Amino acid sequence: MQDELKHVVIVGVGFAGLFAAKKFFRKKVKVTIIDRHNYHTFNPLLYQVGAGELDPEQVAYPVRSILRKQSNIDFLMANVTGIKFNKRILVTDRGEISYDYLILSPGSGPNFFNTKGAETNSAIMKTLDDSIALKNRILMLFEKATKCEDPEERKKCLTFVIIGGGPTGVEFAGAFAELVNGPFKKDYPGIKPDEVNIIVIDVGKRILPMYNEKSSAYATRILEKMRVKVLTEKQVTAIDKDAVRFSTGEILKSGTILWTAGVSGIRLKTDIKIPERRDFRLQVENTLRFPGYENVFICGDLAYLEQDGVPLPMNAPVASQEGELAAMNILRIIENKELKPFRYADRGAMVTIGRNSAIAKYKIIEVRGFIAWIMWIFIHIFYLIGFRNKIFVMINWSRDYIMFERSGRMIIPSARIKK
Amino acid sequence: MQDELKHVVIVGVGFAGLFAAKKFFRKKVKVTIIDRHNYHTFNPLLYQVGAGELDPEQVAYPVRSILRKQSNIDFLMANVTGIKFNKRILVTDRGEISYDYLILSPGSGPNFFNTKGAETNSAIMKTLDDSIALKNRILMLFEKATKCEDPEERKKCLTFVIIGGGPTGVEFAGAFAELVNGPFKKDYPGIKPDEVNIIVIDVGKRILPMYNEKSSAYATRILEKMRVKVLTEKQVTAIDKDAVRFSTGEILKSGTILWTAGVSGIRLKTDIKIPERRDFRLQVENTLRFPGYENVFICGDLAYLEQDGVPLPMNAPVASQEGELAAMNILRIIENKELKPFRYADRGAMVTIGRNSAIAKYKIIEVRGFIAWIMWIFIHIFYLIGFRNKIFVMINWSRDYIMFERSGRMIIPSARIKK
Repeated sequence: MQDELKHVVIVGVGFAGLFAAKKFFRKKVKVTIIDRHNYHTFNPLLYQVGAGELDPEQVAYPVRSILRKQSNIDFLMANVTGIKFNKRILVTDRGEISYDYLILSPGSGPNFFNTKGAETNSAIMKTLDDSIALKNRILMLFEKATKCEDPEERKKCLTFVIIGGGPTGVEFAGAFAELVNGPFKKDYPGIKPDEVNIIVIDVGKRILPMYNEKSSAYATRILEKMRVKVLTEKQVTAIDKDAVRFSTGEILKSGTILWTAGVSGIRLKTDIKIPERRDFRLQVENTLRFPGYENVFICGDLAYLEQDGVPLPMNAPVASQEGELAAMNILRIIENKELKPFRYADRGAMVTIGRNSAIAKYKIIEVRGFIAWIMWIFIHIFYLIGFRNKIFVMINWSRDYIMFERSGRMIIPSARIKK
Repeated sequence: MQDELKHVVIVGVGFAGLFAAKKFFRKKVKVTIIDRHNYHTFNPLLYQVGAGELDPEQVAYPVRSILRKQSNIDFLMANVTGIKFNKRILVTDRGEISYDYLILSPGSGPNFFNTKGAETNSAIMKTLDDSIALKNRILMLFEKATKCEDPEERKKCLTFVIIGGGPTGVEFAGAFAELVNGPFKKDYPGIKPDEVNIIVIDVGKRILPMYNEKSSAYATRILEKMRVKVLTEKQVTAIDKDAVRFSTGEILKSGTILWTAGVSGIRLKTDIKIPERRDFRLQVENTLRFPGYENVFICGDLAYLEQDGVPLPMNAPVASQEGELAAMNILRIIENKELKPFRYADRGAMVTIGRNSAIAKYKIIEVRGFIAWIMWIFIHIFYLIGFRNKIFVMINWSRDYIMFERSGRMIIPSARIKK
């Protein structure tokens, strides 16, 4: 009997992978979930790790704890290096794994749109490690600036450029500006807040284009109040080691260039020719099935699907719902039932810019200000996986709110893993 | 007037350096305190980071926050590479710094006693980074073991050797055994607790030789109850990449060899010939002055001083008291007063072995068991610097006590600092 159980392999423990796994709890399938990290990352709050607001442990949760009581689900920490679709085999750095069904949800990476030097010279914020590196870098540059006597070098150290005026760029800019205007003012008495330049750059007409014009104007106003410069309609042509080049010929010197302008699917080596989109995402059927492979489902950021003529966004709610449906559709195949199509239930979107300032959106209604900010806090707390994390994040945020303080101001480069 | 202020330089933000700095608060001296990290580490709890009990941020505290309101004290993040005693200059990777008075408290490193291969092949636990690396290594080996089919390789992965039965080795062994017998049993259902070998090795007749024989026997008994093997009178002659070699010719294969057997002073390049002790500590006068240099004081682990014919231990209480006296003696020189000799006020010592099990010692009285353990908790909480850390550590410990849980089970190798 045991041997007849179908083997489902899930790639990735992001929102899509985890929500898929949960649907297999106590089901008659054997599941292996694979990731190169042994923890799930709460990506929507990564920018707070970058800005020293939360500790890395507060936005991550060990996978094995989540799956603990599920005897039919196995976790494997491994790097997926390729897929042999025709042989139903996954290739990893810990050996080959055969599957009956595959849920592919490896997430996304940055999309540099072939901008010269961008990949080498910019910081990103796609993983926990990226965010820790960014925080360490910011702290190092402040330390360097304190004793820097060359005014040009000092200015470069204290200039932080964020390319991309989407939610990630705006949220990071706001959180970072609060760090600079608050705790850093006290920690670095030799550096005046107006010496620090935080600049958000976007190629479009306005930041946060997914919100309405009023909300974009509101976000710009709040950022400018916090001394963040917002430059729109600026085309970046290249990124040097410590400068941004624009199509106008202008050059902006900066010690930290953070790229949040684009996201693309993770590329995997396969034995088939996949029609590639410019953003490396894979077009899926409305059942989330990979066209031509009835046993393969794709979800999360890697899946490209339109709903009512509009592409679904690459975010946690879409990924979670896709993961659930992909798992349910696999169970339906096993039970000889018909597949269900995916239908995204929009629960709204929100972005926080700073203390008391956020934008919340539900369908065409948008709310701004303190109420949106309170909503943002409770929804994020609610979705943070794990009891401990919820309490700790709440304490951190409350203290920060009352004391204008920050917790994560230590440069902990941490540790090589000797294998 | 300003220019006449004397310049005191303090090397190190450990217990000695920080307690020295505190004595200069609101005093008429200019102080620069230097460290390669921008945080103070609560070293007595590093082993809990190694065993995944506490998060790194919970045992560290940013230096700039501690010194925030002190306009006469400056922090410099730099590596001290040498000292020119005769020119009163400190050499760092961020330039030379001249001083009128110097407090040298750079701390200690491991002492391998010239054991072959020990430096290259063993893990240590002297800094926060070391502890994070150790934790990551342990987790990686458990992940590796889960899918390892070669029984010999699997046994090696699951064998953890701790060399040194002093407080650090014993405390780590206990905390690690609790992790293995508790959360790991649930996280790694494929690994049976009795497959995991934790072995404490000491060259002496008994572990914890600074406590009485009854206490040593108690510690051994508690450890053995937790399935930790305690091997005494074992002489290690060499450490290979994955094996310990003994004087008897025996070879013990192990994926993790943790060295806690010895501590030595940090060696610095100087322009003078220093009479070197075998442990690289520096003999000081009873005023903590460096013989021959009236403006240099040494304290903390680097200072060697005897009291009543017995060398003072290398621990936090001694370092703190030395730091305070060194600072006071510098102020006394400036005020033309006579120097005071150092006299260690022994407030006792304690070591915890596990849940409800600790040993507390005051002079010749030793207490064992639950009462000692409660004392241990409150004293450590009390001394942990920072309100936030106290709350968080308390929450972590309470939850762990009630739920038999652990927080820090994520492998976060973290992040290169791009300069």
